[in-house]
Amino acid sequence: MNGLALLDYGSVLVFALTGALVASRAQLDLVGIAFMACLTAVGGGTVRDLLLDRHPVFWVGQPDYILIACGAAVLVFFTAHLVESRYNWLIWLDSFALSIAAAAGTGAALSLGQTGVVIVLMGVTTGCLGGLMRDVVCNEVPLVLKQGELYVSCAFAGALVAVGLDRLGVEALPTLGACALTCWVLRAGSLVFGWQLPVYKARPPRR
Amino acid sequence: MNGLALLDYGSVLVFALTGALVASRAQLDLVGIAFMACLTAVGGGTVRDLLLDRHPVFWVGQPDYILIACGAAVLVFFTAHLVESRYNWLIWLDSFALSIAAAAGTGAALSLGQTGVVIVLMGVTTGCLGGLMRDVVCNEVPLVLKQGELYVSCAFAGALVAVGLDRLGVEALPTLGACALTCWVLRAGSLVFGWQLPVYKARPPRR
Amino acid sequence: MNGLALLDYGSVLVFALTGALVASRAQLDLVGIAFMACLTAVGGGTVRDLLLDRHPVFWVGQPDYILIACGAAVLVFFTAHLVESRYNWLIWLDSFALSIAAAAGTGAALSLGQTGVVIVLMGVTTGCLGGLMRDVVCNEVPLVLKQGELYVSCAFAGALVAVGLDRLGVEALPTLGACALTCWVLRAGSLVFGWQLPVYKARPPRR
Repeated sequence: MNGLALLDYGSVLVFALTGALVASRAQLDLVGIAFMACLTAVGGGTVRDLLLDRHPVFWVGQPDYILIACGAAVLVFFTAHLVESRYNWLIWLDSFALSIAAAAGTGAALSLGQTGVVIVLMGVTTGCLGGLMRDVVCNEVPLVLKQGELYVSCAFAGALVAVGLDRLGVEALPTLGACALTCWVLRAGSLVFGWQLPVYKARPPRR
Repeated sequence: MNGLALLDYGSVLVFALTGALVASRAQLDLVGIAFMACLTAVGGGTVRDLLLDRHPVFWVGQPDYILIACGAAVLVFFTAHLVESRYNWLIWLDSFALSIAAAAGTGAALSLGQTGVVIVLMGVTTGCLGGLMRDVVCNEVPLVLKQGELYVSCAFAGALVAVGLDRLGVEALPTLGACALTCWVLRAGSLVFGWQLPVYKARPPRR
Repeated sequence: MNGLALLDYGSVLVFALTGALVASRAQLDLVGIAFMACLTAVGGGTVRDLLLDRHPVFWVGQPDYILIACGAAVLVFFTAHLVESRYNWLIWLDSFALSIAAAAGTGAALSLGQTGVVIVLMGVTTGCLGGLMRDVVCNEVPLVLKQGELYVSCAFAGALVAVGLDRLGVEALPTLGACALTCWVLRAGSLVFGWQLPVYKARPPRR
């Protein structure tokens, strides 16, 4: 329970930073940046809570989450001009957010005793939907759709690992840690070494 | 009840195929294609269930739906290069998905004894929202917005027919069958014969 | 309670007009325009009700809202060609819709005794999300993201004022009136006099 809340806090903070960074690229004012930070930060977890009928939605019951997201927006507003490449920061922060949020989603579904399929989907949904909303609203190409990069697959693999460990009787904390780590290692490997899965080709490889 | 589940299965399968086809046009890998297939397949029905407060959401209670959508994604991944025109397949599969999903949404609202307005809206929502999410996320022009084609109108007419038949005391199965058929005939007629409603013109027809 | 319903009716009507105007710019037929009018009209309030677990969702329990939105669509369909600048009408109608909807969202959260942070967020969400959905679906640049204009900030300020007055013991009606007025004055000032908050700059002002 406590560990889950910590994951939610972590993913909210890091996703808020990415939302604020994207908003700063669109040259919004402080309130606009805070709006995008909040949307990105709580988007995935909100969908998870609505789908699983968990009420109150995590940030409605505990408004700290929103304050954290707003704090992240203020931080970005005043410091983003100091960094060399905002895009690089965005990509790497997003990789952390994806991993932590995937673990948070997986953990929430595990704690409710859902089936394996639902647990994996909640990991993927919570991990990917915040960033997807950010990119759709800001009219950027969604990271989910970048060719030749692992993204959804990372959350998917992390959630699979978590389900496996849980079935083996491993406790919640190491299970979710392994989930986040698997997800992040795959994403980082994809960014640094170009790891990818075979993509769909319109023509078969050999004719 | 059973008939409703069948409609849900059908619309999930066909919508998943359309989602996978759109994703294959964006050259995603297998997991990305499965993600888009799932989003398209369960998007409309999920919104319907959330709006009507039906819990668990249909695919959370019955994870088969997700497995079907993933199966459709695998099928498309390995066979889509064999078809001549993926766009044609997409359009026609989407017409079936629209019709079946409109009937599924209408049936769900009918079985809950909702008012006529809500029943019609649930038919339209369930029919159109999965495809709309697919197109917005993949940055395609939403089929909903194509000029000079019937789309929303088909689901609307089908749902109207279903409400009428239900009020006349016709049983659920023929009612929903007529709903799906009406929707599909209109859509097919629009695609083949160019049937359309008068569109809005910025200037009046005669000056 | 009654005042709240009135605000909901008002925001539904005006938002429906804006949705229909945007749809008419995309040259849709009457059903397509009605679909966009409904989506815009009830989008923000629906998200509010789902987040706060208020069931039935306001328009599911009271289908009049949908009929009003459809009436607005019919009105726009037959009269929009008479106006000089549809874009001007859109912008100004949207400013009213934003203000009324922000008050409606704030009022709903106030009546449920939510915390201040949640109340403010509900005002912002209800005010901004209908228009955001409209713009994302129709592929327009979201008004939320327009540079150098106050938009989210108006709803934010209005909701803040409402929370303040409520804490001072002012009654619901004047509280929500002040909320809507604050929001609208800021938005109108931004449109007419160019009021804005400092926007984020990639480089610091002085080097």
